Amino acid sequence: MAQAKQEHQHDHAASAGMCPHYEAAMELLARRWTGLILTSLMRTPARFSEISTAVDGISDRMLSQRLVELEEIGMVERKVDVKQRPVLVEYASTQMAHELSPVFDALQNWAEKWMPGGSDA
Amino acid sequence: MAQAKQEHQHDHAASAGMCPHYEAAMELLARRWTGLILTSLMRTPARFSEISTAVDGISDRMLSQRLVELEEIGMVERKVDVKQRPVLVEYASTQMAHELSPVFDALQNWAEKWMPGGSDA
Repeated sequence: MAQAKQEHQHDHAASAGMCPHYEAAMELLARRWTGLILTSLMRTPARFSEISTAVDGISDRMLSQRLVELEEIGMVERKVDVKQRPVLVEYASTQMAHELSPVFDALQNWAEKWMPGGSDA
Repeated sequence: MAQAKQEHQHDHAASAGMCPHYEAAMELLARRWTGLILTSLMRTPARFSEISTAVDGISDRMLSQRLVELEEIGMVERKVDVKQRPVLVEYASTQMAHELSPVFDALQNWAEKWMPGGSDA
């Protein structure tokens, strides 16, 4: 890994392949809904139903699957408050997820300029 | 659209939904391989076989499909040089694609910190 890093010298693509760290990150964002779920949770912790409302079009089954994946990766934390009735289950983004903010902010800037039509892109 | 923009005030997610521009941009990046193809072309124009080599694991059929999509969106330009024998066909990123650089650079920084394991994430 250290060797790969040295070879690529922080470029995001080498002519004969890509930095493996970058590839892994891009693959993560290329899982449908992942970016939008994280975007939603980076603003505020939320219950399942609230995330479902914020991420327009996602099925409960898919949201459930993505939340499990993101928990495993360490980007989402599931918090259970048993003192409440009914028990309150909330999902929150971790530091690892929060540090994606510069990526998402840059994407927002780009989108405002280049994605005027919204969902038809 | 103007109304939606005003409501969201450039946040990348509102509690009751997301900015439609941002959603469209995220959906674009969530098409598998799209980010890596763009990353490759943003460094240098390339022939089909060169992109195929740079984007490890992509099938020719999928690469072909993604290039057509990216051309339609306006992010990739197909350049044909008929003076060469055999005819040279190259793909190049457009200004619209180039302006994603801040997004990709931020993702590279994040990846170096948080994706140490490479492809197992």
